[in-house]
Amino acid sequence: MNHRNVLSILGLVLKAEGILLVIPLIISLVLKENSTIPFIITITITLLLGTIFSFKRNKAENLTAKDGFIICGVSWLLLSMFGALPFFLSGHIPSYIDALFEVVSGFTTTGASILTDVETLPRSLLFWRSFTHWIGGMGVLVFILAILPLSSSRTMHLMKAEVPGPKVGKLVSKARFTAQILYAIYVVMTLVQIVLLLFGGMPLFDAVVNSFATAGTGGFAIKNSSIAAYDSAYIETVITVFMILFGVNFNLYFFMLLGDIKSIVKNRELQVFLSIIAVSIAIISIDTHQIYGSVSESIRYASFQVASVVSTTGFATADFNQWSTLSKTILVILMFSGSCAGSTAGGIKISRIIILLKGAAKELKKMIMPRAVVSVKIEGKTVDNETITGSYAYLVLYFIIFVFSLLAVSLFDSFDMTTNFTAISACFNNIGPGLGEVGPAGNFSGFSNASKIILIFDMLAGRLEIFPVLILFYPSAWKK
Amino acid sequence: MNHRNVLSILGLVLKAEGILLVIPLIISLVLKENSTIPFIITITITLLLGTIFSFKRNKAENLTAKDGFIICGVSWLLLSMFGALPFFLSGHIPSYIDALFEVVSGFTTTGASILTDVETLPRSLLFWRSFTHWIGGMGVLVFILAILPLSSSRTMHLMKAEVPGPKVGKLVSKARFTAQILYAIYVVMTLVQIVLLLFGGMPLFDAVVNSFATAGTGGFAIKNSSIAAYDSAYIETVITVFMILFGVNFNLYFFMLLGDIKSIVKNRELQVFLSIIAVSIAIISIDTHQIYGSVSESIRYASFQVASVVSTTGFATADFNQWSTLSKTILVILMFSGSCAGSTAGGIKISRIIILLKGAAKELKKMIMPRAVVSVKIEGKTVDNETITGSYAYLVLYFIIFVFSLLAVSLFDSFDMTTNFTAISACFNNIGPGLGEVGPAGNFSGFSNASKIILIFDMLAGRLEIFPVLILFYPSAWKK
Repeated sequence: MNHRNVLSILGLVLKAEGILLVIPLIISLVLKENSTIPFIITITITLLLGTIFSFKRNKAENLTAKDGFIICGVSWLLLSMFGALPFFLSGHIPSYIDALFEVVSGFTTTGASILTDVETLPRSLLFWRSFTHWIGGMGVLVFILAILPLSSSRTMHLMKAEVPGPKVGKLVSKARFTAQILYAIYVVMTLVQIVLLLFGGMPLFDAVVNSFATAGTGGFAIKNSSIAAYDSAYIETVITVFMILFGVNFNLYFFMLLGDIKSIVKNRELQVFLSIIAVSIAIISIDTHQIYGSVSESIRYASFQVASVVSTTGFATADFNQWSTLSKTILVILMFSGSCAGSTAGGIKISRIIILLKGAAKELKKMIMPRAVVSVKIEGKTVDNETITGSYAYLVLYFIIFVFSLLAVSLFDSFDMTTNFTAISACFNNIGPGLGEVGPAGNFSGFSNASKIILIFDMLAGRLEIFPVLILFYPSAWKK
Repeated sequence: MNHRNVLSILGLVLKAEGILLVIPLIISLVLKENSTIPFIITITITLLLGTIFSFKRNKAENLTAKDGFIICGVSWLLLSMFGALPFFLSGHIPSYIDALFEVVSGFTTTGASILTDVETLPRSLLFWRSFTHWIGGMGVLVFILAILPLSSSRTMHLMKAEVPGPKVGKLVSKARFTAQILYAIYVVMTLVQIVLLLFGGMPLFDAVVNSFATAGTGGFAIKNSSIAAYDSAYIETVITVFMILFGVNFNLYFFMLLGDIKSIVKNRELQVFLSIIAVSIAIISIDTHQIYGSVSESIRYASFQVASVVSTTGFATADFNQWSTLSKTILVILMFSGSCAGSTAGGIKISRIIILLKGAAKELKKMIMPRAVVSVKIEGKTVDNETITGSYAYLVLYFIIFVFSLLAVSLFDSFDMTTNFTAISACFNNIGPGLGEVGPAGNFSGFSNASKIILIFDMLAGRLEIFPVLILFYPSAWKK
């Protein structure tokens, strides 16, 4: 590992955070909020440290895949540690662990909150809280790649470490241009959503932060009753559609710009994703129609909640804790599946599940026809063995982390099994609300600090897909 | 596939069942119970069909691995379908689906029951019910291999399909002798347990059937309050020790007979297995000591329940449904881990978990050192890729079946999530009781027939480790 090289990129990350923090600072100054000084302190620290780290800059030429993972893991840790300061220093979240939980939940686009009354927060902090969703959604390393002329083609490793999914395809030959295209699509889609929400009569500030939370599939709301507060079928429809849109692989939007509709239509992951959504909405609508009085109302609530959970956003317009076991079971399964690779969503990802299933089917086929040469194909293309074993390893580590988290949380706190199980599902899959105490009407404030640290780890491991976080615990990874 | 060949082995299986049914028939005759005619009818049918099937016997020479799986899957289906008849025809279980559930639960050594009052059953039926545990524990195909001179070395495929674990080692060069050694150890250990239980003052009949249920790690009790009915610390200790002993790979007992203590001591799976048991008992003893008034009492109950769950037996002396979330979480995790490969226990198996973990660690290492050649080693021996990918495929199929079962059961019935989740865990891992409605104090009678069929499938898939059951749904597997 080239330490100086790694350090210089970490410096860039901190500088980027410092610059992004200027926006909430301006809001704070304009509205004369008590968070001004905390923002100034945080910006000073991040810019100063960032400058020191990136003082002696090396070329990113000898960046390996391992370096990419380490930079990614450490970047997200630093971002969160400093990003929590405004909440902590302003006194609005008096415990640093709580502030860290909140901001990790933001960056990882989880949306799980320890706040019992979010409406008391000043606007500048509410903005920063939702803005972390937007930054974390597409990724901070991808952001840096998009804006800075990092000179090497090796920077693709940085992108691979941060972009979700079993495989990351370059859209164009240069990583920098790929990052720019992704961010351009991201910005435009966010702007379109803001405009559509404004049409629905939502105030500008609300439209902006809610669009940030949708775009990052995060789910932080600025009202205690989440999106239900607006009580508007139009607004719910816009957000439902955009939650699904942000759960789609962004590469498909690039294909759309190129006019390559064929690639979109025959995309297996998209087909499966939309089918799962349709079937889930259908079953839950039928199952809950007695609660909501009519099928049209139950479709409205089922659609929003399904889109929110499958896209791992976590907005709520209904307390699904009150739904039947069938509907709750479907939502819990959707928590695990998540959305498409290359989107801003969490979960295991549809394409990874497809690869795992095809891999298992291949083993079954090999038993029936031992001499046949069987390969795993998706859309006619053979999936290489590395991707398959990588997905398998991911699945194993996923369940191990899940089991250890479950044990730890039940050791540190005494909630019921459903609360513990879904709290971890909700954090690890970057959703936000779970069931029981952490249902849409509850929050995470009741957990002990020890449990919160476990859940912080789970959120990071979920967003970065385990490897960049686990690799930090491997002493040999830190050697030159 | 050689149909005639397969048919002839299926015929042997049916004939074996017919002969084994003679023992409960004799009990029924001696005690003049109303189950005599049903036993005679069942014996006649199985022997008749068995004779027809195996009339034109072929040599087992061209038996492939695929044939082994198919024979295994179909054998267990037939065994269960006919084994259920005595319960159904005698009217003691009026619904055939219920009778099938009970006998599948028996053969698969699950021990989940639909009976609300087991004590009303005649002794001959109680005997048959527990005897199915004993037959299913070591396996009916292994039994046939042990007693009949099947002429080919290819018969190893039959054993591989039926013996649990990621890999089946031949103890000696011939499959037949391996089967004989395994059954000899099984018989001797069962006899020792019967004698030890008799010493504790347990009546002979009870000692025999409870030893059957322990040996097969089944868990059917003949008292409504399971083993708690005897209220004897001695009896509980004997059963605790034997549940653990039957959860150990039987190959280790063979090594013991050969005086090869070194192989036993350095067996990684055994080390992990015993460590898991020790740690679980320690935590649960501390956690429950307030419920039981003293640590010595809590150790007594914790040991029994941990041994019962980890060995997937399912006997109970305490209603762990009343325990804290921590203790319940540990038990649920033990439900999934199960015991050692090559034992009579269910679950994922410790050795398979070790292989999966080492496989995942290998992928992590490859990321850190892309050029290094990393292989998965257990006890110094390299695990071949086939075993690793087989374990991965198993894990994927395991979770897929779990998720579909969960969806189906929550669609067909309206129990709470904990009941559904643990009912499937308990059936799929061949344990017996779960939590909630299916806790140690409850039973499975409340489920609809549709759910019971799902659970029957899960029990078979769990005992035969998925592949032999799934392969039956592959049309191409049935071709010549």
